[in-house]
Amino acid sequence: MLRMSTLFVRTLRDDPADAELPSHRLLVRAGYVRRAAPGIYSWLPLGHRVLRNVERVVREEMDAIGAQEVHFPALLPREPYEASNRWTEYGDNIFRLKDRKGADYLLGPTHEEMFTLLVKDLCSSYKDLPLFLYQIQTKYRDEPRPRAGILRGREFVMKDSYSFDISDEAFAVSYAAHRDAYVRIFERLGLRYVVVKAMSGAMGGSASEEFLAVAPNGEDTYARSLGGYAANVEAVRVVAPEPLPYDDAPAAHVEETPDTPTIETLVAVANAKLPRDDRRWTAADTLKNVLVVLRHPGGQRETVAIGLPGDREVDLKRLQAQVEPAEVEPFTEDDFAVHPGLVKGYLGPQALGTESATGVRYLVDPRVVAGTRWVTGANEHGRHVFDLVAGRDFTPDGVIEAAEVRAGDPAPDGSGPLQLARGTEMGHIFQLGRRFADALGLQVLDQNGRLVTVTMGSYGVGVSRAVAAIIETSHDERGIVWPREVAPADVHLVATGKDPAVLAAAERIAAGLADAGVEVLFDDRPKVSPGVKFTDAELIGVPTIVVIGRNLAEGVVEVRDRASGDRQDVPVDDAVVRVAAVVRG
Amino acid sequence: MLRMSTLFVRTLRDDPADAELPSHRLLVRAGYVRRAAPGIYSWLPLGHRVLRNVERVVREEMDAIGAQEVHFPALLPREPYEASNRWTEYGDNIFRLKDRKGADYLLGPTHEEMFTLLVKDLCSSYKDLPLFLYQIQTKYRDEPRPRAGILRGREFVMKDSYSFDISDEAFAVSYAAHRDAYVRIFERLGLRYVVVKAMSGAMGGSASEEFLAVAPNGEDTYARSLGGYAANVEAVRVVAPEPLPYDDAPAAHVEETPDTPTIETLVAVANAKLPRDDRRWTAADTLKNVLVVLRHPGGQRETVAIGLPGDREVDLKRLQAQVEPAEVEPFTEDDFAVHPGLVKGYLGPQALGTESATGVRYLVDPRVVAGTRWVTGANEHGRHVFDLVAGRDFTPDGVIEAAEVRAGDPAPDGSGPLQLARGTEMGHIFQLGRRFADALGLQVLDQNGRLVTVTMGSYGVGVSRAVAAIIETSHDERGIVWPREVAPADVHLVATGKDPAVLAAAERIAAGLADAGVEVLFDDRPKVSPGVKFTDAELIGVPTIVVIGRNLAEGVVEVRDRASGDRQDVPVDDAVVRVAAVVRG
Repeated sequence: MLRMSTLFVRTLRDDPADAELPSHRLLVRAGYVRRAAPGIYSWLPLGHRVLRNVERVVREEMDAIGAQEVHFPALLPREPYEASNRWTEYGDNIFRLKDRKGADYLLGPTHEEMFTLLVKDLCSSYKDLPLFLYQIQTKYRDEPRPRAGILRGREFVMKDSYSFDISDEAFAVSYAAHRDAYVRIFERLGLRYVVVKAMSGAMGGSASEEFLAVAPNGEDTYARSLGGYAANVEAVRVVAPEPLPYDDAPAAHVEETPDTPTIETLVAVANAKLPRDDRRWTAADTLKNVLVVLRHPGGQRETVAIGLPGDREVDLKRLQAQVEPAEVEPFTEDDFAVHPGLVKGYLGPQALGTESATGVRYLVDPRVVAGTRWVTGANEHGRHVFDLVAGRDFTPDGVIEAAEVRAGDPAPDGSGPLQLARGTEMGHIFQLGRRFADALGLQVLDQNGRLVTVTMGSYGVGVSRAVAAIIETSHDERGIVWPREVAPADVHLVATGKDPAVLAAAERIAAGLADAGVEVLFDDRPKVSPGVKFTDAELIGVPTIVVIGRNLAEGVVEVRDRASGDRQDVPVDDAVVRVAAVVRG
Repeated sequence: MLRMSTLFVRTLRDDPADAELPSHRLLVRAGYVRRAAPGIYSWLPLGHRVLRNVERVVREEMDAIGAQEVHFPALLPREPYEASNRWTEYGDNIFRLKDRKGADYLLGPTHEEMFTLLVKDLCSSYKDLPLFLYQIQTKYRDEPRPRAGILRGREFVMKDSYSFDISDEAFAVSYAAHRDAYVRIFERLGLRYVVVKAMSGAMGGSASEEFLAVAPNGEDTYARSLGGYAANVEAVRVVAPEPLPYDDAPAAHVEETPDTPTIETLVAVANAKLPRDDRRWTAADTLKNVLVVLRHPGGQRETVAIGLPGDREVDLKRLQAQVEPAEVEPFTEDDFAVHPGLVKGYLGPQALGTESATGVRYLVDPRVVAGTRWVTGANEHGRHVFDLVAGRDFTPDGVIEAAEVRAGDPAPDGSGPLQLARGTEMGHIFQLGRRFADALGLQVLDQNGRLVTVTMGSYGVGVSRAVAAIIETSHDERGIVWPREVAPADVHLVATGKDPAVLAAAERIAAGLADAGVEVLFDDRPKVSPGVKFTDAELIGVPTIVVIGRNLAEGVVEVRDRASGDRQDVPVDDAVVRVAAVVRG
């Protein structure tokens, strides 16, 4: 039993200044966590209980699919990560340090290399497979912008598991087992979630799926169609149209378009000076060329131009996901100064490409197929070129998925128009293939005595993040509304007033519930007003609130449901049995 | 139920090359841990189960004294440790790192500063005290010589708790509660232990006690008397004798003592050339002066001379404990070259001391009291001085406890002669006083509305270390012998032979035991010989081994006690009930 009189908690009436999200505000106000450094939090007793409840759910579901729990160090030697190239690929996103002897270490963001090496150490035969290993562990990432409290911290708790299989067919079974376990985990945690195709990022591998908690202020945007397509927008693939014939296309012609540094001004001038016969010019007729700089691991900077229809913006997250491990940086005035061949505001394909005078790599949106005709910059101030035909007048260096995805865009699988929504990444499951096993030499003997490279999967759940995500899903203006499975207690028992009979009855009921195996948070504070106690109870968010006060004179206590607000009077003598029944559902 | 056929374990027949201690050898051989880097280990499924069992024992006993569990980050900002001066005092013993913005962090070795700040944040009144908080957490120390497997790692699991009290009297109660909890923890873990006075080291504070597991190859040496004195030798205080009168002492006289650079040669020459009337000269008549260098935090090096009776050696660990946070380094030939006034082998007090020509600080053993007469170096090659009287002919700069403690030395409290033994530090409890509360401004209002500084204690248990220490206490030549409380399973069930009836009976008994709540490790491997299975079972060390094999034909199974080796036949139909009874004691 927890007693409010001695519990290490202090609820706050005001929101913390740095908190934008409900989960961040409520976790701090209700005394679940405290900030220790940017993106680094301490868990107070109530928060620690919720965190451990989430761990328990995850552990039970991992155990249920036969995964075995282990525990790896967080402080890891450089060498295995060097072998997989992730020491470099992670860039600034991992914490690195040296020991007293000058040896290099990192704080583990995820442990593919270490698990691969351990399995290599212990396993030698197909008979040892399939093998699922997992750990629930503190992980580290040096996020550039830690925000949102524990939702995106730099030190956080993660469940990471790894599967090892002899073949792709066997792996498919292992992957499905994990996917099913994740469905059960997120159901039990009471999260509204979607499963979407995702980008694999630094993990590599062939494919991955994310479990996103649906959240209007989530960091991720996903697209889905009524026909069943679902993907993180970073992973959406635009369907390239068929190439168009261009035999009858007029030759490209340069026109004076003074003062048209933007798409909007260009379209206006084109319609005024060079009107079309069939319809008006729109932004979709223009080819916008955007310069960015890619900073590659190791530090070298590369200028890249991205060509896309002028009615779309570059989506920096989509671009970033394509160019990882490089990082995208803005192309600055200083960069223009170095490249006199690049004319700001009037950039066109003919001055772009590795074969051009500027040598700038030129990548275009998949919609820019051969035969499409464009209005675009003529690489001279105040001039644009019309009827510039892709495949005739210019040939890009390649294609890139960097244009924004918009609601109504067709799903790539033909399943209908896309809708967009936001979510928070709660789980990510990766088909790693043989990337790590190859890099670190994990092979076993198959049924025929031949050495084969093991096929791996890796599977993460954000355990500490789930505590926040659950609140994003489940709170109201008065506080947190915990799902029963993770609540810090089953019952919040409030004794009001100063009547010794009330206090005695409350003590009796609290003890009775505790004996019945119910976790009780008992507000036994003698000098605190009923109003403050109720406010605290609603803020803290235990699913069932039992009030013992004036109505004891009528022989009843009140049982409130935190989520619905329903109130019910229960005879005091039945209170323990009735409340225990509510708790057990 | 764990099945050997799928368990992620691989037992080894041979000892690992780098393992000196039984616990290290057995943990690796039996597949409990694997080394990931120097002093950094991964826990395999069996090891993880034992580790969690130790955690459970510690958690239950901490909860029982009303301590509340929290969880702090391991990655900590520099500032609080700067305020307490420990950022500097820890020297090379902590891991330091910078984040992507260049801010300084450390990996927490212990969390006094963070707990002090959190309590300052949440508590404001004497009514909030006493308060006990604890965490079970991964900690980091950059040990200069990580050794002995998980017994002295650089990443390890510790339980650290902290008490907060309004007064010294209240603190005494809190300290006693923790001390009692520790007694229960170590009893339950099955450790043979002693509680000894200890040095507080970087923790500061007024006093501390260590719980040492008795271990012949332990890193710590402790001294105890039959009368009840017990202390880590680092903490033993030599009782200074009363000063002696020296009015009738002859004047000091320098003598030729060629080729006497050691105490042994000096005593021989003295007895040969300058024999005493009453008895022979012994090493105890000589005053040995030992030079060392102290490297202070910040880096400056200071030469110090230590004077002690010639029949005793300097104990480097006792010396180190006295000079912390400085580190002791050898005085080298290069150092002699810099100090021509220090004559190697013939060093005497008259060339030592901050007032002397050399300026070298001179500290002496407490036995070197005023009036004691010494044979010692004359600061000239081949010469010693006789009848040099402390307090008359030389005055040291101070006293230091650096001489070795020997069996038979008197206990400082007069409780009889000391015996020496070795142990491993398993717990350390500190009376911190107000060091941290002062440094970080932790004050609360007392009953009279006055601000008072809080009195603190801190209390550590080496959780991962305990796993090794238990094995040091409890193993034999065949393997580990787990106490029931921490064993990775209750029963190791071995099915031998290929008879399908045996395997079916074993499956039935395994399932029956599992249903009865007994944790079973079931050796169901079909193609492994009985000999290998028995060897593995004894190596792994589960307390009860049940063998189902040929004797099934006679209707019995064999129940073995791992510790005693006792064997008992039990009717197969009673097996579940009988074995469950053994498990429950």
